Amino acid sequence: MIQVKVLVVGANGQIGKHLVTRIQNEENLEARAMIRDQNQAGDFEALGAEVAVVDLEDDIEAIAKAAEGTDAVVFTAGSGPHTGKDKTIMIDLDGAVKTIEAAKKANVQRFIMISSFDTSREAIQAAPEGFAPYVAAKHYADQWLLSTKLDYTIIHPGKLTNDAGTNQVTLAEKVERNEVPREDIAATIVASLNTPSTVGKRFQVVKGNTDIADAVKSI
Amino acid sequence: MIQVKVLVVGANGQIGKHLVTRIQNEENLEARAMIRDQNQAGDFEALGAEVAVVDLEDDIEAIAKAAEGTDAVVFTAGSGPHTGKDKTIMIDLDGAVKTIEAAKKANVQRFIMISSFDTSREAIQAAPEGFAPYVAAKHYADQWLLSTKLDYTIIHPGKLTNDAGTNQVTLAEKVERNEVPREDIAATIVASLNTPSTVGKRFQVVKGNTDIADAVKSI
Repeated sequence: MIQVKVLVVGANGQIGKHLVTRIQNEENLEARAMIRDQNQAGDFEALGAEVAVVDLEDDIEAIAKAAEGTDAVVFTAGSGPHTGKDKTIMIDLDGAVKTIEAAKKANVQRFIMISSFDTSREAIQAAPEGFAPYVAAKHYADQWLLSTKLDYTIIHPGKLTNDAGTNQVTLAEKVERNEVPREDIAATIVASLNTPSTVGKRFQVVKGNTDIADAVKSI
Repeated sequence: MIQVKVLVVGANGQIGKHLVTRIQNEENLEARAMIRDQNQAGDFEALGAEVAVVDLEDDIEAIAKAAEGTDAVVFTAGSGPHTGKDKTIMIDLDGAVKTIEAAKKANVQRFIMISSFDTSREAIQAAPEGFAPYVAAKHYADQWLLSTKLDYTIIHPGKLTNDAGTNQVTLAEKVERNEVPREDIAATIVASLNTPSTVGKRFQVVKGNTDIADAVKSI
């Protein structure tokens, strides 16, 4: 069976950990966990995943080296909406753009971006003051990806929770805002990696009643 | 004499005030000062300038309305490197991008961007931690402008001072980093407005020994 190697950027994050675990459980996929600190490596090595120690504030060259020899890059790093605003621009925007440029440099054509639920211009304007910088950062990161020739998929999750995954979602270009377990986002990423028709698509995902594999195929 | 009407975005800023004054002193130019607060209007009206009250955190439509009927837009608003990082992304990046989009919407083809001295990818990486978000914001604003079909000029000033202008500068694509009076940046903007060959150019400016009009013509 053909092995697809996936660089997970933000592997030590809450979605990232679920994602590496799930990738390692898929016969045709294998993960390379990109982490900031060698001390985080043990958990990923225990799963049989490769590890690349790179800080997202390093340069494109360092990230490109981590991407070399992989077949897909997933960007699921995030300062989150509640970190310092300097990290919002340096990680959520600049870190994402550097990862995109690194994928190009390393000739990795497939790119999956974990975005925010609504990153439209209108959403920036409508966001509460403290949240707007995060929405703006994700907006510009998405725009950068859209301007490339990469085989992108942009996933816009609803409000993330640590509830157990149900393996069922509601998924479409536009859905009603709702919660979604991080575990089901990880499953949606895996399904997207295994579903070539998701290339060039962007969609919102919240909890729902459709099996993730079917929901992703229908997009 | 043909009147060129110039929307000055950030008119109440330190460069902006010099700029409106100088524009009003040029026979062929007239200013429309875009300001956040009606209370700031008096000084500009005293100079004979028009006033448009718009907050840069308003939407593109509001900025486009301010740009309607003008012939050029100058973006010299700035949170500065020392404001909160949320303003860095909302003003220096998103405010700039909205102004660019507003110019397109209002069919204003000429756009002059006041950037930072070095907004290259390398400069983001090399910047001290507290300064990097500002450099990144200016980098992405410049990139956005470069991706448009507007008749742009991007001015990269050295370290800004409140010294009196000398009307002399050193100006080229790359110059050695040095100080430059804000007043001379205002003069450089006016010279650029009056020099069509600056369209499609970007240059650094610091204090020096060449008359600004000659320096701008030579670029």
